[in-house]
Amino acid sequence: MTTVAAYAAPSAKAPLERTTIERRAVGEFDVLIDIEFAGICHSDIHQAREGWGEAIFPMVPGHEIAGVVSEVGSGVTKYQVGDRVGVGCMVDSCRECENCRAGLEQYCLKGQTGTYNALDKNGEPTYGGYSQKIVVDENFVVRIPDGLSLDVAAPLLCAGITTYSPLRHWNAGPGKKVAVLGMGGLGHMGVKIAHALGAEVTVLSQSLRKRDDGLKLGADHYYATSDPQTFEELRGSFDLILSTVSAPLDLDRFLSLLKTDGAFVNVGAPEEPVALNLFSVISGRKTLAGSGIGGIRETQEMLDFCAAHGIGAEIELIDADQINEAYERVLNSDVRYRFVIDTATI
Amino acid sequence: MTTVAAYAAPSAKAPLERTTIERRAVGEFDVLIDIEFAGICHSDIHQAREGWGEAIFPMVPGHEIAGVVSEVGSGVTKYQVGDRVGVGCMVDSCRECENCRAGLEQYCLKGQTGTYNALDKNGEPTYGGYSQKIVVDENFVVRIPDGLSLDVAAPLLCAGITTYSPLRHWNAGPGKKVAVLGMGGLGHMGVKIAHALGAEVTVLSQSLRKRDDGLKLGADHYYATSDPQTFEELRGSFDLILSTVSAPLDLDRFLSLLKTDGAFVNVGAPEEPVALNLFSVISGRKTLAGSGIGGIRETQEMLDFCAAHGIGAEIELIDADQINEAYERVLNSDVRYRFVIDTATI
Repeated sequence: MTTVAAYAAPSAKAPLERTTIERRAVGEFDVLIDIEFAGICHSDIHQAREGWGEAIFPMVPGHEIAGVVSEVGSGVTKYQVGDRVGVGCMVDSCRECENCRAGLEQYCLKGQTGTYNALDKNGEPTYGGYSQKIVVDENFVVRIPDGLSLDVAAPLLCAGITTYSPLRHWNAGPGKKVAVLGMGGLGHMGVKIAHALGAEVTVLSQSLRKRDDGLKLGADHYYATSDPQTFEELRGSFDLILSTVSAPLDLDRFLSLLKTDGAFVNVGAPEEPVALNLFSVISGRKTLAGSGIGGIRETQEMLDFCAAHGIGAEIELIDADQINEAYERVLNSDVRYRFVIDTATI
Repeated sequence: MTTVAAYAAPSAKAPLERTTIERRAVGEFDVLIDIEFAGICHSDIHQAREGWGEAIFPMVPGHEIAGVVSEVGSGVTKYQVGDRVGVGCMVDSCRECENCRAGLEQYCLKGQTGTYNALDKNGEPTYGGYSQKIVVDENFVVRIPDGLSLDVAAPLLCAGITTYSPLRHWNAGPGKKVAVLGMGGLGHMGVKIAHALGAEVTVLSQSLRKRDDGLKLGADHYYATSDPQTFEELRGSFDLILSTVSAPLDLDRFLSLLKTDGAFVNVGAPEEPVALNLFSVISGRKTLAGSGIGGIRETQEMLDFCAAHGIGAEIELIDADQINEAYERVLNSDVRYRFVIDTATI
């Protein structure tokens, strides 16, 4: 066991504060990682405030983790001390079910183990990346290629893979018209990755406020969803719409923007159910689908892809004592485009 | 112009009654069909009673038409007098858009022309199959193979193609677990076709009332959705669920029955919007989709497939003066499994 400094939410209503947690001793297949940077994901806030249901407290959020290996267990073969590595949204899964064997650990039929706000195989709570060190089984660690700085790589572990996986699965690429709905932490990564995959990329954002950024990051077009004209003009346009928003949506209106056989894929989701007229999918044989993060193999593939294309997140680096303020700014969509905690300041 | 006997709804509130309509003169590319049988589809009732919005009256419903060619225009090359033919849900489309060129006339970007309750290119209302004759462009006529009786073939023109098309599109076949939700006119065709395609077929019906029929038609399993145990037992079971019901559904509950990457495809739809929790598709990368009838080429493929597998609809043959009573029985789910009008009785 090692005592490690961390930032934790003591309860759902309380601000995060500095504390210490215990990390398990490094087991045979474990890697000890000195965390350097941890991204702040909107879902950290959902969970820390129990927006997605009952949670485990104290909670150390953080599933966008980048750091350096400082110790390895005797059975570890994939990593050695000094390796630059990342950890994303999960730290374990059953490893035996059909999905785990297919590299889809995120859909483990017995339930994967979240990086925080979960119980591990021994029934111990997991604690995330807002801390100085973490111990993770080597099979749930990925390598951060040399070309990527650790600070801009951290958000790839959630925002990157969450957008990369559906863009690949629904064949974003040359000749495809892809819209990214929402221009936040996930959305800005979706734009970069869809562009790098060769698709024609349109941003659909509430306003044109971030238009210049969007075009700079790789978007070919930028429309405001607050303008009714957008829905007239873009009717039947897209092969794929990747929705990164977690606000309630008028799904029927967005489905009208798809071509025949097009897909509207949700990676964000509102806490409440949404209404849908089923004729919106029957007309034009359309798909409404969802996608959650990605598997470990695909996360590595994404990091290699991002390194090859010079893609990192656009970040605002903060000290740990700014976390609570950063949460408020995330809730106000006031971040360009991801807060990343310099964990040396914890 | 030819005067033809027909059954029509004079207005949305009135019962259907015998009347006469005018059919256009047989044009260069037209086929005159002596209708022998016309199926009664639930959507006839939706439209005749304006459940799907404002409609055109008087209305002669019927888009499951089987008959014999009695005259052809000078430019017709595909059919000759005496041929056994069918007409489904559409009698024209733009024939020029991307979808029409791809054989997806049902998704014509300029809107296909419905067999009834629509206006044709000349602005004249179209009248459907509850009549003795119809004039249709040869490109919207399909051939009924010799092995199929016209009476059991008629419902294939809507109920058959509406289920065949999504079953093919979502790869129902050997090794796939397919559920058919609803055991009515569409559902019983879905069971027969999915079974003939080689899938393992489960019927999900409100009760076990039609269980014996379902198993006889090709289902391997039969469950009642009124039994909560069904949802426990079948959790994560299906590659594909074909929903033929038009009653409001608890979508989240049915999505839980899909495997990872499974698809829930609607061919029936309630008139009102339904509620959906987007986490139901995010967990397990699931698809909620829809499908509408099928293209002309695929309708012919379906008829050939059904003939090769000895598949017709299960029907109750009625006289024209029983149409209004049949409507009531359809609304009460009291038909096994399709009413077909003997149009000689009009």
